[in-house]
Amino acid sequence: MSDPLRIGLAGLGTVGCGVVKILQKQAEQIEQRAGRPVRITAVSARNKGADRCVDVSAYDWVEDPVALALRDDVDVVVELIGGEAGVAKDLAEACFANKKHFITANKAMLAHHGVALAAAAEKAGVALAYEAAVAGGIPVIKTMREGLAGNDIISVQGILNGTCNYILSTMRETGRSFGDVLKEAQDKGYAEADPSFDIGGVDAAHKLAILTALAFGVKPDFEALSTEGIESITAQDIAFATELGYRIKLIGLARKLDDDSIVQSVAPCFVPVKGALGSVEGVFNAVLIDADPLDTIVLEGRGAGEGPTASAVVSDIIDIAAGSCLPCFGVPVAMLKEAQWASADALTAGYYIRLQVDDKPGVIATISAALRDHDISIESLIQRGHDDASPVSVVIVTHDCKAGALQKALDAIAALPAMLDKPCVLRIEEGS
Amino acid sequence: MSDPLRIGLAGLGTVGCGVVKILQKQAEQIEQRAGRPVRITAVSARNKGADRCVDVSAYDWVEDPVALALRDDVDVVVELIGGEAGVAKDLAEACFANKKHFITANKAMLAHHGVALAAAAEKAGVALAYEAAVAGGIPVIKTMREGLAGNDIISVQGILNGTCNYILSTMRETGRSFGDVLKEAQDKGYAEADPSFDIGGVDAAHKLAILTALAFGVKPDFEALSTEGIESITAQDIAFATELGYRIKLIGLARKLDDDSIVQSVAPCFVPVKGALGSVEGVFNAVLIDADPLDTIVLEGRGAGEGPTASAVVSDIIDIAAGSCLPCFGVPVAMLKEAQWASADALTAGYYIRLQVDDKPGVIATISAALRDHDISIESLIQRGHDDASPVSVVIVTHDCKAGALQKALDAIAALPAMLDKPCVLRIEEGS
Repeated sequence: MSDPLRIGLAGLGTVGCGVVKILQKQAEQIEQRAGRPVRITAVSARNKGADRCVDVSAYDWVEDPVALALRDDVDVVVELIGGEAGVAKDLAEACFANKKHFITANKAMLAHHGVALAAAAEKAGVALAYEAAVAGGIPVIKTMREGLAGNDIISVQGILNGTCNYILSTMRETGRSFGDVLKEAQDKGYAEADPSFDIGGVDAAHKLAILTALAFGVKPDFEALSTEGIESITAQDIAFATELGYRIKLIGLARKLDDDSIVQSVAPCFVPVKGALGSVEGVFNAVLIDADPLDTIVLEGRGAGEGPTASAVVSDIIDIAAGSCLPCFGVPVAMLKEAQWASADALTAGYYIRLQVDDKPGVIATISAALRDHDISIESLIQRGHDDASPVSVVIVTHDCKAGALQKALDAIAALPAMLDKPCVLRIEEGS
Repeated sequence: MSDPLRIGLAGLGTVGCGVVKILQKQAEQIEQRAGRPVRITAVSARNKGADRCVDVSAYDWVEDPVALALRDDVDVVVELIGGEAGVAKDLAEACFANKKHFITANKAMLAHHGVALAAAAEKAGVALAYEAAVAGGIPVIKTMREGLAGNDIISVQGILNGTCNYILSTMRETGRSFGDVLKEAQDKGYAEADPSFDIGGVDAAHKLAILTALAFGVKPDFEALSTEGIESITAQDIAFATELGYRIKLIGLARKLDDDSIVQSVAPCFVPVKGALGSVEGVFNAVLIDADPLDTIVLEGRGAGEGPTASAVVSDIIDIAAGSCLPCFGVPVAMLKEAQWASADALTAGYYIRLQVDDKPGVIATISAALRDHDISIESLIQRGHDDASPVSVVIVTHDCKAGALQKALDAIAALPAMLDKPCVLRIEEGS
């Protein structure tokens, strides 16, 4: 057997402790699969005295995580600190400066600084691995970077945030409001005290930026991403979705258009209840990849949590131990293309539109006429009964149309005196 | 850029031509991802003059495929000839004798001779890669060998044969008989003229033997596999399954039991209609892996056909070009364990039982008593109405029980004078 691969571990939260557990418990199997032993030599975390469910006393304790990158007895640094910049980024840069492999679960950092970090890793001749950054235990990075390396990817879409999916699933199952279910998710620990990164779609967008880069060989560009969260989804929208044969899911979508421009969007969408993503419930994640000549594959599993995320980190460790050192985003940085980004409005899709209107005679006729005037064809329309005092919900599902034309129709509709609120408009992703 | 990786391609059927197409069309992307160009130098097939949808005139034509292994201008041989032994195996052995990497889609050969071939590859220091051998375009080999390398696999189960799944799906959708749908599948080219390998479960068993080895680090052992096909599934069974909330699927299952013995079985099973495998229809394949501490992941996609299978072959080519040379079954051959095999009867499961009985008074009472006497508890029982002349179907779904006790009860039931036919017994896989 060869020399051991020596790990410096920064961050001993849930995932960090999970990594320690697997490396301890599965040591023999890992050695066999990696072709060499894997050993933790040093660890670093904020609080040395914290109560942990793993024993780290056998490893050197380092106060400053960046110091892990300087140690002669560390070959790979595993960063589980998090944060777009700060210590995590300092540590990554120190690793590359000192020719240490670097493994991270930090999607925010990769989405924002992926190109610079990939370039530094490449220059140092070391691996920058991040299976745990996207969709937890689902090996989607490996699948896209290696498994589909010869394919022409057409689109990648997914349910990339378990918190959002848990909230939307629970809203549907219980009929309760967004705020109510969010609070429960926070109480259960499924949502952060500050949930804005999750429910606002930012976390999913970080992950999507990475998948987009891998799918299309382009530089990840978080800034180019249009992001919409699930905060404004109502129990009523969810009930209408069910009635129409759909689910509402926060979908991260990257799709190559005919002119080779790329749409990159995170937004709540209607997806068919019987489709691959429509049936993914609770905290589960799923990724659907459409590629030529592969057709469609779907990967589903737990997108977060100690075990799944730690498993992904350990698979990166084993890959590095076995000698793998692939370009971060599939191709060398110099070959990453600058994408031509297109807005989600460039997609041809059907839309769900919910209007709150004052129930005056002729309202439906006026709305229908506005849509017709902009060539928007209606697939179905629901006007739901009401008690006399309340406004009426008018729900329209359109056939495929262009978002630009739809927007003009909606502008005309918004100007009607009977309109009581901003319309809710959600794209329908029939292929999900 | 480094030297090109030079390919010798044996077999120019559907998949072989698909590989040529991808390597021609995606040459630039593949070179970027692999870090070096990939070039076909020589090809071999049965009929040089055959009409093909790709132009192979630029490549050397070799009459005897085994000669590909002897060429100085070939680094990797891709074997798409098929067959458990014969030319395919001669070619594999010649490759290893001549230190050529070897890529194959040949599950029969790996299931039967995997250990010997893996040992030869290892001794030669070359790769034996076979992503295309199992579940076509779904990267299940990579997922199990690399993605889950640090996990303790509990079970792997899947829909591994698209022909069977197409037949069962179509039987359900149309209510038609097995023979009728099989004939249609043959006419459409979804089933072979001699369909016995597919419908008898042998093809799925070949694939399962490989997955079992990867999952548990054991020597693949096709002989240890209990295999049952779908020939005896009737339209009636499928209708009962639907009524009870299930689908009938040909499930390949490998599961580690508490005593570390391994069940390896291919058989038609009841799976919940809402479960991950229950919703997989038509020619699609899916694999569900349960692992500690990963929980469950599911991979779904096309299990056969030109594009998916060729994609898998190309991903192996790119891996080898990029320097990957992992042990065939995850760990070196010397470390592969001899499995303790257990029969599927060792599983604790519920069962579907359909009895054809002569409708005499007291039949149900006698059957129920026989089950009770062997501690088999009934979850549901259906006796379906009939015209006077025909026998009655009695369908029983049991709670979890041991197959041994069930068999004794069935023996007692089979001895009843009212029994008109052998009972149909199918295991229920609730976790699928």
